[in-house]
Amino acid sequence: MMQLPAIFEIYKPYIEKEIKSLLSNTELLKISKNKIALYEMMAYHMGWADENGTKVISNSGKYLRATLALLSCESICGDFKKALPAAAAIELIHNFSLVHDDIQDGDEIRRHRPTVWKIWGKPQAINVGSAMKTLANLSVLNLQRNNIPPNKLIEILKILDESCLRMLEGQFLDIDFEIRPDVDIADYLKMIERKTAALIECALQIGAVTVINYSKIKPFKNFGKYLGLAFQIRDDILGIWGNDKKTGKPSGNDLRKKKKTFPIVYVLSNADRISRQNFLKIYSKEIIYDEDIEKILDILGNLNIREISEKKTEEFYNLALAEIKKLPVNTEKIMYFEEISNFLINRDF
Amino acid sequence: MMQLPAIFEIYKPYIEKEIKSLLSNTELLKISKNKIALYEMMAYHMGWADENGTKVISNSGKYLRATLALLSCESICGDFKKALPAAAAIELIHNFSLVHDDIQDGDEIRRHRPTVWKIWGKPQAINVGSAMKTLANLSVLNLQRNNIPPNKLIEILKILDESCLRMLEGQFLDIDFEIRPDVDIADYLKMIERKTAALIECALQIGAVTVINYSKIKPFKNFGKYLGLAFQIRDDILGIWGNDKKTGKPSGNDLRKKKKTFPIVYVLSNADRISRQNFLKIYSKEIIYDEDIEKILDILGNLNIREISEKKTEEFYNLALAEIKKLPVNTEKIMYFEEISNFLINRDF
Repeated sequence: MMQLPAIFEIYKPYIEKEIKSLLSNTELLKISKNKIALYEMMAYHMGWADENGTKVISNSGKYLRATLALLSCESICGDFKKALPAAAAIELIHNFSLVHDDIQDGDEIRRHRPTVWKIWGKPQAINVGSAMKTLANLSVLNLQRNNIPPNKLIEILKILDESCLRMLEGQFLDIDFEIRPDVDIADYLKMIERKTAALIECALQIGAVTVINYSKIKPFKNFGKYLGLAFQIRDDILGIWGNDKKTGKPSGNDLRKKKKTFPIVYVLSNADRISRQNFLKIYSKEIIYDEDIEKILDILGNLNIREISEKKTEEFYNLALAEIKKLPVNTEKIMYFEEISNFLINRDF
Repeated sequence: MMQLPAIFEIYKPYIEKEIKSLLSNTELLKISKNKIALYEMMAYHMGWADENGTKVISNSGKYLRATLALLSCESICGDFKKALPAAAAIELIHNFSLVHDDIQDGDEIRRHRPTVWKIWGKPQAINVGSAMKTLANLSVLNLQRNNIPPNKLIEILKILDESCLRMLEGQFLDIDFEIRPDVDIADYLKMIERKTAALIECALQIGAVTVINYSKIKPFKNFGKYLGLAFQIRDDILGIWGNDKKTGKPSGNDLRKKKKTFPIVYVLSNADRISRQNFLKIYSKEIIYDEDIEKILDILGNLNIREISEKKTEEFYNLALAEIKKLPVNTEKIMYFEEISNFLINRDF
């Protein structure tokens, strides 16, 4: 199993402490007379509590976006703590999107556990996600604690909400593409630039702009874009060929959902006519069964789609590496960005 | 039919122009190759476009919250335009909550038309609502256009997101109460203070704080609280005894959904044992049919629940009127606040 770079482990307790302090509202628990209310449902989603609200040491996420925000801050000024409220904000935005995404896709399992909607129903899960988005914005205001001036907060909130809006545009396109037969690679890239890359770009930018001038953050955005594209195609690969014990999601899930991921869009827009027709014969069925998945995997195998997808990931990875060299950061920190990039395109979880 | 106070009509074109400019993104339309994408779905919900994206003069809302924000600003400084981006923000937050609320409640009709989820499905409707919330935050940043300084923007964003969070807590409680048998009037009031009053308070506060010191806005919050409580109980009354041609929602809707509205909570916690048992016999049924609704209306009628509910509305209305006198506004503007309050508790739509 591919090891998580050490920097993730260093930041983790700080990120968790920052977000946990935002979820510490217990008033609602008293009114609802339940063991678990809105904030405890968020803690459950984050992997910090079980479904009765009892604290657990469970499967939290990697905190990739918060880690990128903290690293971009530290690589400039040497102190990652300055950006902690911004890091918490981007991580909350990401998790808001996951909670809603699970509702939208009907996914019942995330990080090896039932999803929020699966336990408490879709109506409450919608509230849980929306509340996380709202807490993200409030978290940014906590930067005042670190003497970050109001105009900086405004810059960060602008980047955060513009990125969030792009992410939502990406979610819109992702769902829109499900029923559209003519999606090509260019469409797909516009979709994942929004759905995935926008928040990665955002994380790097808000960590940086906390401590340097707004006019200097463009290289962080460029790096984030290519890293995000590579990250998503790797995700698409894992969604088809990944090991469910490692990814925490059922294998073949993306195929069962007929998602327009990179491998699929590639077949639909680049394969020879016969292969495409064979593929569509299965992929356009109402329900995809296990034996259909076997057949799809055979077609993808014959067309070397996994190798083609991995090559595309590497292409974006190399573009990301080139952008790292342009970052206005201390040279001894460059290796951290490289290490994270390397992990992201080779990870199996 | 009760007439809308004139101030609503004066502000309306400005509010619409401000919000429409936020929805003018057409890039997504090109990528999705549809006649209607994320932003056009928002315009549909607002009543400005039909389901093909064609502009229509339709049933928009009253823009109550935006109107309150503009009035509180104008009543202090004489110029409502200063607060337009803040007014757009609170109106967008309200409409974000409506789009999600319709999904959560499964409501198929709003303002005489099919709801967003009914046309484009729940997954896209979730995106539509979340994008409106995000645009609300971005709208506040447009206050810079009116030379409102960064520290003011921070104050407004803090009020906006704290209120939004309370509104979501209210939505949580509202759904939570549906399956709880022991909800009393105190619980109910804590729920609507959040679900409804929070955004009314917010509207008045952000309009005011745009032009006066943060330390002076407490009276606007107090007025908003009582106005919001009166407003919601009036809404509950219309949800049971309202005319569907006027409200734009099917009559008996709240009863069919077994909502814990004021009249129902009153019966459950204050009626004599026999009436309560008779009521519960019907209200605890899996499905409520038309003949059940007749029976419920009979029980409510025998117990004078409509009169009791109207009396409660008036109680909060009188508290609101008393708070108006404490507002730090020009005395000749007081009548506008009174006129709106009067309209809200007597309205039939």
